[in-house]
Amino acid sequence: MIPKKRSVRLWFRNILRTCTYIYVNSSSYIEAAKEKSGGTSMEIGISTFVETTPDVVTGEVISHAQRLREVVEEIVLADQVGLDVFGVGEHHRKDYAASSPALVLAAAAPQTKWIRLTSAVTVLSSADPVRVFQDFATLDGISNGRAEIMAGRGSFIESFPLFGYDLDEYDELFDEKLELLLTLRESEKVTWRGGKHRPAINNLGVYPRPVQQPLPVWIGSGGNTESVIRAGLLGLPLVLAIIGGRPTQFAPLVQMYKKAAAQAGHDVSKLPVASHSHGFVGEDTEGAADKFFPSTQASMNVIGRERGWGHYSRASFDAARSLEGALYVGDAETVAQKIIHLRKNVGITRFMLHCPLGTMPHGDVMRSIELLGSEVAPRVRKEIARWEAEGEPQE
Amino acid sequence: MIPKKRSVRLWFRNILRTCTYIYVNSSSYIEAAKEKSGGTSMEIGISTFVETTPDVVTGEVISHAQRLREVVEEIVLADQVGLDVFGVGEHHRKDYAASSPALVLAAAAPQTKWIRLTSAVTVLSSADPVRVFQDFATLDGISNGRAEIMAGRGSFIESFPLFGYDLDEYDELFDEKLELLLTLRESEKVTWRGGKHRPAINNLGVYPRPVQQPLPVWIGSGGNTESVIRAGLLGLPLVLAIIGGRPTQFAPLVQMYKKAAAQAGHDVSKLPVASHSHGFVGEDTEGAADKFFPSTQASMNVIGRERGWGHYSRASFDAARSLEGALYVGDAETVAQKIIHLRKNVGITRFMLHCPLGTMPHGDVMRSIELLGSEVAPRVRKEIARWEAEGEPQE
Repeated sequence: MIPKKRSVRLWFRNILRTCTYIYVNSSSYIEAAKEKSGGTSMEIGISTFVETTPDVVTGEVISHAQRLREVVEEIVLADQVGLDVFGVGEHHRKDYAASSPALVLAAAAPQTKWIRLTSAVTVLSSADPVRVFQDFATLDGISNGRAEIMAGRGSFIESFPLFGYDLDEYDELFDEKLELLLTLRESEKVTWRGGKHRPAINNLGVYPRPVQQPLPVWIGSGGNTESVIRAGLLGLPLVLAIIGGRPTQFAPLVQMYKKAAAQAGHDVSKLPVASHSHGFVGEDTEGAADKFFPSTQASMNVIGRERGWGHYSRASFDAARSLEGALYVGDAETVAQKIIHLRKNVGITRFMLHCPLGTMPHGDVMRSIELLGSEVAPRVRKEIARWEAEGEPQE
Repeated sequence: MIPKKRSVRLWFRNILRTCTYIYVNSSSYIEAAKEKSGGTSMEIGISTFVETTPDVVTGEVISHAQRLREVVEEIVLADQVGLDVFGVGEHHRKDYAASSPALVLAAAAPQTKWIRLTSAVTVLSSADPVRVFQDFATLDGISNGRAEIMAGRGSFIESFPLFGYDLDEYDELFDEKLELLLTLRESEKVTWRGGKHRPAINNLGVYPRPVQQPLPVWIGSGGNTESVIRAGLLGLPLVLAIIGGRPTQFAPLVQMYKKAAAQAGHDVSKLPVASHSHGFVGEDTEGAADKFFPSTQASMNVIGRERGWGHYSRASFDAARSLEGALYVGDAETVAQKIIHLRKNVGITRFMLHCPLGTMPHGDVMRSIELLGSEVAPRVRKEIARWEAEGEPQE
């Protein structure tokens, strides 16, 4: 099951010592999350890439500044309506306003009380892990222990030439930077061997110190088998981007992740698994779909053109709204049922609704967040609590 | 007057095209500051290094997290009492909690309306200027146009080994990084030659875009003649750290800066000059001195041991509190008279009170900020407005 590739083994050996340490954290983290989510191990939240694509109806392009300020309001509201987590993505393109997720999260932190604040993702491959750690340790201090790093290779590649990295070293860069990032969590004084892309550190302190020990680091994955297995071996929480196809197709991947984790000695029952999917909650299902479709189509076509996907049609949009599809669009009951389905059939313990996709009116986004927190999350928590009490089937 | 050294000339040539651009900004900036400061060109604010040195009385060491949250409250209060600017320094040591000034400032930004938010300083030499620009452009968006970068070489040197830089290249690093930072301000799409310490950028966009065009970049200097002249040649606003000796001794340096600026074609009357000095405002002068002395002594002795200074005595502390000294400690009237003296005799147009120095009770720091905004600043503004209306002597 586990690939025997030399690179994986070497890399695994290098950071094996980290595993026990992280295992302890995962356990305590999921217990805390359970307590917060009314006894269930299900967290529900929002993620955004802070898009500034032209408004599909008016053609208006909102400034980066205005969208950034709107997102701060969205995070504050998400906290007020009881959502568990808010994620902000890192991009380096004109149609996205956030290249510094930690900064956007920090802006909301003092006005929030409970919500966890995470990148979604931090493009670790093109970053300096020390700066990433410092930024999120600062956020952890300001939020009193609510910061998380979601480390990813980046599905967008603009940051590589901008920071002078070679895309041919895509995997190697991530491996090296993740190794350092995990080393940084182990102790205040850091010694690191140095790599091809980052100089060594010889017994130096890294500050500020985070509140959480260690600062949570999740691995963001688009579903690449090798990256999922690595996350499992390391006992690191996993986030899957599920933005197409049937979410249940990801169940074998989650199983593979858990097998890898078990093989490396981690307690699988304590490992959180998150998903990130597009969606929108409205007053009624068809109205929500009509509101969400235009900007979704526009965004998927822009990305589709860059990646050679076909045209995004209303038919494929509507198909993806079914219980088995990857779009979480509709009234509260519809979206709740889909999240419950995901929890029961794929084993997802944290669901993140990417909303909006592209540019939607701020008021609509705020209402969707309000409904997710006040209407969707209670339904999901109630059903999952009942299901868990009855004895959720163990894989 | 201006050194003819080849390095200065070459560097100057490389960024000459930036000058006209910056000149336009400096003019509009100082006009806006004048409007905000009740018609005078005098700004008053606070700066902090977010120290976490042991409490001199109790021995208690506050956590980085707690001190970070206190500083966010201090920034919010500074805005409420009408101060013009708040600065946060960057350090990479156990006794300082802020290695990411932009993050700390961002945390306060949504709860503030008017105050300008600046690093004090950003250790540019060991940073990636693209990340610095992005962080402060994000802060500029969140604060709707109130972000500033104060770029410095760093009087502390911990960041150099941490990020793999050689202290032997102290000046060269700063020059190269500043060149890139100024290039980043000029246009959305950036082309930069590449240097010894940072790869080239070939016509790539850098996002988010700031509100201010361009984003203000000040040069922080400890009083090094060459750095002051360079700032003048570039038409960049200057911040002088005046933490010892007689502040009026800095007058010739300010003249030198202005002469360099004039020689390069900048309108000297529009160029702001800031100072950064230690101090504390209390209800009465002797009480303020007694409160401020212990942590000041402790801090000055720690830094003094590292830099080979002599023991810091109460006698030298008290001497520095005189009108001619560099400590701004006392009741509102005393501190106001010292700031007025500095404005009239040295030409400082922005005064930043570094408070606290080391660790003081949060409540005392809050009260000092309140007094600076509500009692000191109005006195200074009134007198400077009168003096300017009468026709401030032009150098």
